[in-house]
Formats: sequence, C-alpha cells, structure tokens
Amino acid sequence: MQPIMTAAEINRFLETDFPQIHTDGRVFTVTAVEPGAVTMTFDPSERHLRPGGTVSGPAMFALADVCAYAAVLAHIGPVALAVTTSLNINFLRLPKPQPIICRCRILKLGKRLAVIDALLSQDGGPEPIAQATATYSIPPRG
Amino acid sequence: MQPIMTAAEINRFLETDFPQIHTDGRVFTVTAVEPGAVTMTFDPSERHLRPGGTVSGPAMFALADVCAYAAVLAHIGPVALAVTTSLNINFLRLPKPQPIICRCRILKLGKRLAVIDALLSQDGGPEPIAQATATYSIPPRG
Amino acid sequence: MQPIMTAAEINRFLETDFPQIHTDGRVFTVTAVEPGAVTMTFDPSERHLRPGGTVSGPAMFALADVCAYAAVLAHIGPVALAVTTSLNINFLRLPKPQPIICRCRILKLGKRLAVIDALLSQDGGPEPIAQATATYSIPPRG
Amino acid sequence: MQPIMTAAEINRFLETDFPQIHTDGRVFTVTAVEPGAVTMTFDPSERHLRPGGTVSGPAMFALADVCAYAAVLAHIGPVALAVTTSLNINFLRLPKPQPIICRCRILKLGKRLAVIDALLSQDGGPEPIAQATATYSIPPRG
Repeated sequence: MQPIMTAAEINRFLETDFPQIHTDGRVFTVTAVEPGAVTMTFDPSERHLRPGGTVSGPAMFALADVCAYAAVLAHIGPVALAVTTSLNINFLRLPKPQPIICRCRILKLGKRLAVIDALLSQDGGPEPIAQATATYSIPPRG
Repeated sequence: MQPIMTAAEINRFLETDFPQIHTDGRVFTVTAVEPGAVTMTFDPSERHLRPGGTVSGPAMFALADVCAYAAVLAHIGPVALAVTTSLNINFLRLPKPQPIICRCRILKLGKRLAVIDALLSQDGGPEPIAQATATYSIPPRG
Repeated sequence: MQPIMTAAEINRFLETDFPQIHTDGRVFTVTAVEPGAVTMTFDPSERHLRPGGTVSGPAMFALADVCAYAAVLAHIGPVALAVTTSLNINFLRLPKPQPIICRCRILKLGKRLAVIDALLSQDGGPEPIAQATATYSIPPRG
Repeated sequence: MQPIMTAAEINRFLETDFPQIHTDGRVFTVTAVEPGAVTMTFDPSERHLRPGGTVSGPAMFALADVCAYAAVLAHIGPVALAVTTSLNINFLRLPKPQPIICRCRILKLGKRLAVIDALLSQDGGPEPIAQATATYSIPPRG
C-alpha cells in the first residue's frame, strides 16, 4: 500500500478544502506519511481544554477522525470524498493539556470501505491515551 | 429507574460546572427527563457547520456524549463524576444545518458502569441521522 | 420500509441456505416481522451454556448477528448476500440459561450499507441483557 | 507490564476452568506471552466453517474474546474473574478455512477496566482478517 500524497500536500489540502477544522488556528498537522499509515499532531487551543487541565473528548474524537481521513486521502488522493460511517473510541487515560500525537494505520482499504486504527499518545509515552477504530465509505471511483 | 434531577436542574448544573461546553453560547439544552431517559436539543452555531450545509461529526459526537452524561446525572445526581470510557457512533444520514434532537436511554446503570443508547434525529423525522452507544465509568459512591 | 418476506419464509431460507447455524438443532427462530424490524428467539442448547448457568458471549453475538441479517433479508429479499462488516456488542446483565429474545430494528438500509440495532432480553423483562449495533455491506443489486 | 503466567499455565487454566470452550477438541492454544501481549492460535473444526470455505463470524468473535481474556489473565493471574463488558469487531477480509492467529495487546490494565486490541491474521500474511477491541470488567482485588 503506497501513499500518493506527501504530508505537505495533505496539510495544504486540509487547509484549502477543510478550513473549518482550523477555525481556531492550525491545530492539526500531518507530520509523517508511510505506507499504510499517517501520523498527525494536535496542538490543543484553549477551547479544547477542560477544567482540571485535560483535553476534551470531542477534541480527541476530532483528532482520530481527521487523522483517519488523512490516512485514506494519502492513499487514494484528494479526488474521492470519503465519509465517516462509524467511529468507536476508547478513552484510556486522562490526557495532559499538551499536544497529542495520533498514529493511524489502515487495516483495510477496499473499493467501498476503509477501516483505520488510530492510537493517541502524548510525550512519546508508551501508554496510549485513547484508541479508535474508524470506518469510511469510499465513493465509486470513475 | 427514577430520575432525581429535573431538566432545569441539569441545565443549571451543566452551565455552572461545564461552562466550556457553552463557549459559543448555549447550544445544548435538556428538554425532557423521563425514567431512564433524557432528551436534549442541540442548536448548531456557525462553527459546527460544514461546507455543503451539514453538521460536523465532532459536533454530533459531543451531543451524544453530553446527552448520555446528562442521562446518568439525572439518575445519580450531581455528586458523582462519571467519565466517558468509550463511545461508538454510527453516522446514518447527512444532517441538515438545523437543530438536532438527541434521545438517550439508559441500558444499564450499574455500580461501576453505565451504558447509554443515543439516537439523533431532526425535524421529528422518523429516520435517525446517527446512533451512538456510550459507556461511563461511575466512581465509587460513599 | 416494508418487509417483503414473512417470518416463515425467512426461517425456511435460513434452514436451507444456512444449515450450519442449526448444527445443534434449530435454535434460532424468527417469530415476528414488522416494518423495519425482526424479532428472533434463541433457545440455547447445552453447548451455549456456561458454568454458573449462563449463556456464552459468542452465542449472544451469533444471535444478534443472525437476527440483524434476518432483518436485512426481510426487507431486501433472499437474492442479495449481505456480509457483516462490523458488530459492536455490550454485555449488560448475565443471562439466565433460558431462551433469549432479540429484537432488531433497521436504523439505515442504504444501497451499500445497512445498520441495525439489536436488543436482547429474557422473560419479557424490561431490562436488556445485551445491546448490539451491526453493519452489513450490501452487494450491488442488478 | 510484566506477565505472571506462562503460555503453558494459561492453556492449563483454560482447559481446567473453561472446558466448554474445548467441547469440539482443543481449538484455542496460547502460543506466546510477552509483556502486555498474548498470541493465540485457533484451529477451526468443521463446525466453525461456512459454505464457500470460510470461518464463521461467531468463531472469530470467540477467538478475539478468549485471547483478550487470556491476555488479562496472563497479567493479573487466575484469581480474579474478568467479565467481557463490550466487544467491537471489524471483519476485514474473508478468512480461508485454515488456522487463525490472534495477537492481543493490552491498551489499558486499570483497577476496574481492561481494554485490549485484537488483530486476527492468517498464514503470517501482513493483512489482518479482523480487528477487535474488547473491554473487561475486573472485579475488586482483595
């Protein structure tokens, strides 16, 4: 499974075509693209934090979702428009109010469905703070 | 399973203790509390919309999460602090850029775990736009 | 959403085309078909029981899966061959070693994907013993 | 996270305390135990096969469930009795009627909840046939 877009190309595409995910400044940045995998950093702003100094659940959901989308994009290109059909997320540990790294691995890239595993961690620590599995519907390609 | 808080009490509690979910104005409002169930309305603001005129996935995730939390709260009171441990969401139909109604039914309210079913719909239409199942960890009660 | 097969027709189809689910005698029986919903009874045999007198997890998984499949079948007919793509199950209460009733409601019946909610209960008791959400891939129809 | 049971000890425990999973002969065998992970082989018998020469969904569910249970057991010992509270499984590719290898990694081993990732493959092939995430409730330890 070979990627056909670079990290820079995906970041540019997200900025142009999904400006809404950057309403509060650029918080999501693809940092690496490998065969079958994409890594993204999320730099939480005030609005993503919660009292007690943690990152909100919806912010972690958004990170897993955008990163999984970027992983599909990286391998099928910006033409097709994949749509999230389901996402299952497990919150494992309370994150600190710091950047979160998400690594997405493509488990399946079929003609109609893609299934992606997302693992969220911080500080390069070995213990994940959340794990998600996302399914995307891929539109028919001409 | 009898609720011990009213809709007004839950709304007040969310406003006081979770101001961050109302950063963009009050978008989440509990409208009904029944035995084992809570109904919430989500009135999306600009930031929750997406090009093409739909509501974002993270916004629907947040709605299911807050409403499920409110359902637990309604039945165990504001003392305990339940934490989302997992959430599985299925996106069924593209929502219109309009208010979304979420109805949460408690499937189980145990000593340690609560499991809640959430059904999101619009316009009183019979066809749901999303379905979620959420699990909350309930801290030991004194 | 109108069903196009009766309970008797679905039972006959399962017997003819899926004899393997009846290896230990007929344990799964569709008892009702309604618009958008199917009800099935599972009568556990020795092999489905567990020490302590409960029903095994895989048996409950199989019940939710077969019943959801029957719900799709009831509405698109026996021609198409739907395949389970994902199933999320929550075990809520330990079942007694007695028949289990599963009610499946179709949340979405699209051209390519069907999403079904399954609720398992016993004794007509109001409290579910398990809840599942299943996704089926529907092959292109001619 | 250090295991406190060997593969042989877990196999013996499963045989003694869960004879029902071996009704058709010994089909589940732990082959490796590492810090935070357990690998299990499943050798399907006639009853686990389906027409067209594939392995049934419930059989793959059972494999993921037993292997995840073995992973918890390996790290907390045979005293505590963990119970599956939820399992989310994605079926990625049709398996061949051959042995399936399941590798379970513990994502979290808390005092009350364990979350385990399970990846099923065949032939040492790089492409998984199924992925599951399971949650276990761990009883209070004295």
